[in-house]
Amino acid sequence: MGDDAAILQPSPGLALVATVDILVEGKDFRWHWCPPEAVGQKGITVSLSDIGAMGAIPKYALVALGLSSGTPLARVEGLYRGIWRAAAAAGVAVVGGDLSEAPRLILGVTVIGEGPADRLVRRSGSTIGETIWVTGPLGRAAAGLKALQAGYRLGRRGVTRERGSSIPPQMQKALRATIQAQLYPMARYREGRLLAGAGLATAMIDLSDGLASDLTRLAEESRVGVRIFADRIPVDAPTGQVAELLGLDALKLAIGGGEDFELLFTSGAPPRAVEETLVHQGFARPVPIGEVLRADAGVFLVGLRGKRTPLTGGFEHFR
Amino acid sequence: MGDDAAILQPSPGLALVATVDILVEGKDFRWHWCPPEAVGQKGITVSLSDIGAMGAIPKYALVALGLSSGTPLARVEGLYRGIWRAAAAAGVAVVGGDLSEAPRLILGVTVIGEGPADRLVRRSGSTIGETIWVTGPLGRAAAGLKALQAGYRLGRRGVTRERGSSIPPQMQKALRATIQAQLYPMARYREGRLLAGAGLATAMIDLSDGLASDLTRLAEESRVGVRIFADRIPVDAPTGQVAELLGLDALKLAIGGGEDFELLFTSGAPPRAVEETLVHQGFARPVPIGEVLRADAGVFLVGLRGKRTPLTGGFEHFR
Repeated sequence: MGDDAAILQPSPGLALVATVDILVEGKDFRWHWCPPEAVGQKGITVSLSDIGAMGAIPKYALVALGLSSGTPLARVEGLYRGIWRAAAAAGVAVVGGDLSEAPRLILGVTVIGEGPADRLVRRSGSTIGETIWVTGPLGRAAAGLKALQAGYRLGRRGVTRERGSSIPPQMQKALRATIQAQLYPMARYREGRLLAGAGLATAMIDLSDGLASDLTRLAEESRVGVRIFADRIPVDAPTGQVAELLGLDALKLAIGGGEDFELLFTSGAPPRAVEETLVHQGFARPVPIGEVLRADAGVFLVGLRGKRTPLTGGFEHFR
Repeated sequence: MGDDAAILQPSPGLALVATVDILVEGKDFRWHWCPPEAVGQKGITVSLSDIGAMGAIPKYALVALGLSSGTPLARVEGLYRGIWRAAAAAGVAVVGGDLSEAPRLILGVTVIGEGPADRLVRRSGSTIGETIWVTGPLGRAAAGLKALQAGYRLGRRGVTRERGSSIPPQMQKALRATIQAQLYPMARYREGRLLAGAGLATAMIDLSDGLASDLTRLAEESRVGVRIFADRIPVDAPTGQVAELLGLDALKLAIGGGEDFELLFTSGAPPRAVEETLVHQGFARPVPIGEVLRADAGVFLVGLRGKRTPLTGGFEHFR
C-alpha cells in the first residue's frame, strides 16, 4: 500500500479474470446473528466463488467498505479479520481498498484471478447429452438461515435458542452444521480449478442464488434445456434434520435456497472420470443430478413420482 | 458479461496495477447539484486518476453500485452513462459489476491498468534537490464546489443562481469553468503515462485530497522534506474570479481544496525537458512549484513575503 494503486505481477501467458460482489447490511446479512468475521468471510467468498466457477486461481482482492461513523472498532477489526483469513486460506493478497462513511455497512470485494485462457470455463459451453453435476450437498446454507430466522444462534458453547428452550444433542450438531454453512461459507475454487484444468467441465456456475435460478442461467447461456431429478439432488442429514425441526421441505431448501457456493457444472466425460478426479484429490464426491437436453425441452425438475415441474421462472415455488 | 467473472487478456510482460475508490451520496456528492452523469464520471475518474499517477494505462473497470429501491431509472441510466463515457474516453472496458440495494447511493469503482514494471512510478522515489511539479492549475474544483454551495447552478443555458439574481457575462464564464471542474473532473492518466514512460517522474501522486495533504503524503512516502512557493502555485483566472466573487482566498483553495486531479510529481530532469515533453504532446505546460529538501526540513509553504507555513498537519488552515 502507500501508493495510488497496487502493483501486481501477472503470471506470463495467463488470462486474468475479475469480478466484484456487494454485501449490504440488512439485506445480505443481519448483525443480529452475523459476527463481523462472518460478514468479512462471506464478502470475499462470494467473489472467490465466482473466480472458482471460471476454473481460475484467485490471486488478488480489493476491498471497498462503507461504514456508519458509529461502527465499533472491534466490529471493523472483526470484519477485516474475516476477509484476511479467507484471503490467506485462498492464497489471495488483499492489495488495495477504500474506506468511506455510509449509512449502513456495505462491502464490495473485487477479486482478480488468473488461469490459462483456453482452460477457463464459461456458463455457455454445455451441449446436449452431457451430465449435470454438483460438487456437494445443497440446502445447508438455506437451512441455516431458516434456523437463524427461527431464533437459533451459534455461540461458543454451541447452538442456543432465544428464550432458552433446550436442544437435544443430535439436533445441536445438525443446527451447528447448517448455521455454520450459512455464516461461514466456503468457496469451491480449488474444485473449480481442478475440473477446469482436467478439461472435465464444459460449463460451470457457482450456486449463489440457488439451484433453480443458477441452473436456469447456465441453461440460458448455453442455449440448452435441462432435466434434473429430485431423487438425485444431494441433501445431507443435518439439512434434513433442521428442515424437519422447522417444519420445512428439505428438497425445496436444496432447490430454491442460495449461498451453498457449491459448483454446478456439465461434463461430457464418463461419470467415473469426473468422480475420481475430485475424490483422488481429497474433495467430496460430486453428484450427477441430471442431463442436458435440447433448448426446446425447457428447464425442469422430475419429481419423485415422475411429475415435471418447470424451474424457469417457476422456481419461486421453492423459495 | 453473462459469466461469473470477466476474462481479460493482459499484455505480455507488463505489470498490473489495481485500485478501488468509493463515492457516497451526501458525503462525496449531493444530488441537489450533481447530475447523475457527473456522479458516474467522478466515480470512475477517481480511480483512473490513481492509475494515471502510477504512470500506468487504465484498461478495465468493475462497478459496484448500491442504490436505494426508489431511485428513478433515469438516474441510474445517467450514472452508468457517465461511467461509460469516461471509460470509453480512456479506452477502458467496463468488464464487470454488481448492483445491490443500499439506503443511499454508494459507488465503488475498481480500475485495473498495466504498464512496464520498471517504469511504474511510486510515491516514494523523490530525492533531495529535485523539482516539484504540478500538471495544471489548482483550486478550480474547490472554487466550483464553493460556488455550488453558494447556490450557483450549472444548467443547459449556463450558470444560474437560486433566487435568480443576474450574473454578468464574464463571471458566467468563470463560474461555468469552475463548476464544470468540480462536477466533471478529468484524470491526467495520459500525462502520467507520458511522464513515466519518459522516465521524468521519480515520484508521483494525484491531487485528490488537496495539494497540502497529498504533498505531505508524497514527502512522507519518499522520506524527504519539501518547500513550495506561494507565488509559483498556478491559480487560473476563473478560480481567481470566483474566489473574489465569493470573498474567498484563491490561494487557499489551491492549497487546501481537493479534486483537481492534477498530478503532482518530482523530477531530477532539467525543467525544459519536463516542460517540452508534455507541451510537445499537446498537454498543458507543467508548473514547477518547489523543491525537495532533507526530511528534517519538513513540508512547508513559503509565502509571498517569505513567511514559512508548515503544511504537515497544519493544512487545516487552508480548508
